Amino acid sequence: MKKFTSVIDVNDPAQLVYDALSLKLNPLKNNELGKNKTLGLIFFNASLRTRLSTQKAAFNLGMNVIVLNVEKEAWALEFKDGAIMNGSTVEHIQDAAMAISTYCDILGIRCFPGLKNKAEDYEEIILNQFIKYCTVPVISLESATLHPLQSLADMMTIREVTKRSKPKVVLTWAPHIKPCPQAVANSFMQWNLALGHDFTIVQPPGYELSEEFSQGCHVMYDQDKALQGADFVYVKNWSSFQQYGLMPDVKDNWLLDKSKIKVTNDAKIMHCLPVRRNVELPDFILNSENSLISLQAENRVYAAQIVLKNLLSNNF
Amino acid sequence: MKKFTSVIDVNDPAQLVYDALSLKLNPLKNNELGKNKTLGLIFFNASLRTRLSTQKAAFNLGMNVIVLNVEKEAWALEFKDGAIMNGSTVEHIQDAAMAISTYCDILGIRCFPGLKNKAEDYEEIILNQFIKYCTVPVISLESATLHPLQSLADMMTIREVTKRSKPKVVLTWAPHIKPCPQAVANSFMQWNLALGHDFTIVQPPGYELSEEFSQGCHVMYDQDKALQGADFVYVKNWSSFQQYGLMPDVKDNWLLDKSKIKVTNDAKIMHCLPVRRNVELPDFILNSENSLISLQAENRVYAAQIVLKNLLSNNF
Amino acid sequence: MKKFTSVIDVNDPAQLVYDALSLKLNPLKNNELGKNKTLGLIFFNASLRTRLSTQKAAFNLGMNVIVLNVEKEAWALEFKDGAIMNGSTVEHIQDAAMAISTYCDILGIRCFPGLKNKAEDYEEIILNQFIKYCTVPVISLESATLHPLQSLADMMTIREVTKRSKPKVVLTWAPHIKPCPQAVANSFMQWNLALGHDFTIVQPPGYELSEEFSQGCHVMYDQDKALQGADFVYVKNWSSFQQYGLMPDVKDNWLLDKSKIKVTNDAKIMHCLPVRRNVELPDFILNSENSLISLQAENRVYAAQIVLKNLLSNNF
Repeated sequence: MKKFTSVIDVNDPAQLVYDALSLKLNPLKNNELGKNKTLGLIFFNASLRTRLSTQKAAFNLGMNVIVLNVEKEAWALEFKDGAIMNGSTVEHIQDAAMAISTYCDILGIRCFPGLKNKAEDYEEIILNQFIKYCTVPVISLESATLHPLQSLADMMTIREVTKRSKPKVVLTWAPHIKPCPQAVANSFMQWNLALGHDFTIVQPPGYELSEEFSQGCHVMYDQDKALQGADFVYVKNWSSFQQYGLMPDVKDNWLLDKSKIKVTNDAKIMHCLPVRRNVELPDFILNSENSLISLQAENRVYAAQIVLKNLLSNNF
Repeated sequence: MKKFTSVIDVNDPAQLVYDALSLKLNPLKNNELGKNKTLGLIFFNASLRTRLSTQKAAFNLGMNVIVLNVEKEAWALEFKDGAIMNGSTVEHIQDAAMAISTYCDILGIRCFPGLKNKAEDYEEIILNQFIKYCTVPVISLESATLHPLQSLADMMTIREVTKRSKPKVVLTWAPHIKPCPQAVANSFMQWNLALGHDFTIVQPPGYELSEEFSQGCHVMYDQDKALQGADFVYVKNWSSFQQYGLMPDVKDNWLLDKSKIKVTNDAKIMHCLPVRRNVELPDFILNSENSLISLQAENRVYAAQIVLKNLLSNNF
Repeated sequence: MKKFTSVIDVNDPAQLVYDALSLKLNPLKNNELGKNKTLGLIFFNASLRTRLSTQKAAFNLGMNVIVLNVEKEAWALEFKDGAIMNGSTVEHIQDAAMAISTYCDILGIRCFPGLKNKAEDYEEIILNQFIKYCTVPVISLESATLHPLQSLADMMTIREVTKRSKPKVVLTWAPHIKPCPQAVANSFMQWNLALGHDFTIVQPPGYELSEEFSQGCHVMYDQDKALQGADFVYVKNWSSFQQYGLMPDVKDNWLLDKSKIKVTNDAKIMHCLPVRRNVELPDFILNSENSLISLQAENRVYAAQIVLKNLLSNNF
């Protein structure tokens, strides 16, 4: 069985980005490939872009789609093997995954972290139990620690707008009012490293990301310095990894403004959305010509579609 | 970009009714027109007829359909431009509409009024922000002030059962136990005026509708007089426009009965549904041969389908 | 109008099982039969296997599918004829069923019992009101008292794994922590009797099932004796029929274990799922080679598909 849950699942990430951009030129070329195949999309959490773009990608390939908000529409799931199920969970993941595998040819799963228990989240209990018990390929629609479809779309976007083989990409922490997952940041690091970009991550003290994903990255704490000469600035909030799920106090102003942007190489600005406007990023940047948020959203379709196409073709 | 949110969006309403009735004779004629096109249906509120009839209409045209209960399945949306989003809203309509426009070829939106703030409701904040930020055609699936797909189906129904070019149509207020929107009534007025029907609206004092929509209508307060000679009686409750969203006391009995109906021209009875039986209308009328509620429900498919067909054909 | 709500609706149950198994060999054979037909799936309750397997079955036949969680996404329904609807219900089943019949060609309905009022549940108010007012065929996706699609899949499973024309089938009550419906058990009895199996039901005192369904069954109270020589053991909890919806105290241990199974004829073990592991059945049995739960889940697709196929062909 093959899967798409991390850049690690991809043999040649640069080729995948290239293939996705090729597919974008002719999205209906493989319109018969998914005929009579069913994509199941299982959500434990809210979704707009991921759900719609993945449905659209499946339609482009001729697939049928079943969407299930699993704990609202089906049953509360048990993830612990050997559990004596005399509590609130009604069905074991082993049985649910078996059934879903029977009815679907590919399965997408969205399962955010609880942000309470670091070990549980970083062991990816939900995703890994699905993978363990599913007999069909599993796609992550954002798991506790990674969001690979977003990152693939982000890499497509960078490749589409620059001719530089080693663009300078800066991932900067941004303010937020609530604790957010680290998944987008972790995943973005992975893919930039895999593609050999000149990659820097900058965040306030206390917001260092897991070494599992940040190893090999250029890590900084001074946003103004980090932004110097950047071709791409990826803006994202995340909560603390060390003080897990908390939001340690931040002294400096981390919200991008005109003066901060001035030191970049006329950088393109990226965000995965949803974005809290004027909290994470000001309107004037999001609405500027340098903003790539629309292109990122558009590329989500082709990121999902190249992954589905490869899984349908047993080509991973 | 074109849209369908009001009779005002339609060049020739009479022709649209005629085209919808023609299409009803052969619903699968344009079964290839929507191939590889996706209809997004975004609901802020409950729906039975509207959702199912619009999905059916899309299927008849070969379209794919994505249904999203946006605030339950995606994110709480912010509608105010320039907002500093440090509250409960997670995504700005500008970004959501951009994304949905990327993944869908036509967008339907249902957004009921709050019935608390007249200005907000009658400015159609939600609908208009979708229209402002969407880059694909928008269809109203009932907005704060209008329900054009219902009215189009109602006009089809009237045309289907009468040969009179100027039938006498009476819209009468009916009792209810809760404050209801004015959208169906407003919309019904618009379309009757546009089609040149002999149109009367009758309601208790305090329940006068917005002049924006009632201007040019024959407005009465005496139900018995209004019903005299009516060919069609459209029954609907709405809450007060002046004492916005409230239900001022009503002295007389406004529930239709045998004696009230006797003065009509053997009138056909219409209601958009859902109807609170024996509160808004008695069973014996709803179940009578003169009741058109089934035909109205049936025509919802072809109302939606002609609108989708015209938008797909850039023919509005 | 035809329906599938009980074995009673089926002329020749053995032939239906045979046809379903034939169809399983070539599921896409009738891929055009449902073209431009729409299946509506109406849920009052949670569903995983039933929803996904029925959607898959419809896709195999080329049908479109509309899923509606009716009371969450549409309106609270009134089921009492003649009701004065001045309470919490917003739409009468008569009008909802009419509308759904207009938009769908076949309708599936899931409506569990409340387990509070025996008469209400066993009169199948919801299901029967749908049948009364729908003008298209109705399929039960599990009603208050029966689950015929599950039973049909169970009968396929038994037929698939045994060559004996009269296999010994034992339905045994199992422990649970909450009161469960009697539907699966009632339905399983019906179908075993109809197919002429050597059928025994065993349960603790106080858990006797309705005579409406158990008449003609071999009823026992001693689990160890009942299991002797069994070819198939179907494990299921249900709440009391006599002390309706309650869970009278049970003295003995009813959870299957190695010693209990030893007396069977190397029995295959069945459960409809979801199963509370290690409460209703231990992991080691559910995961054993004798467990048929995966095959039962798989056969749900073809059970649904043969029913849809027959209804589409007017062949019931």
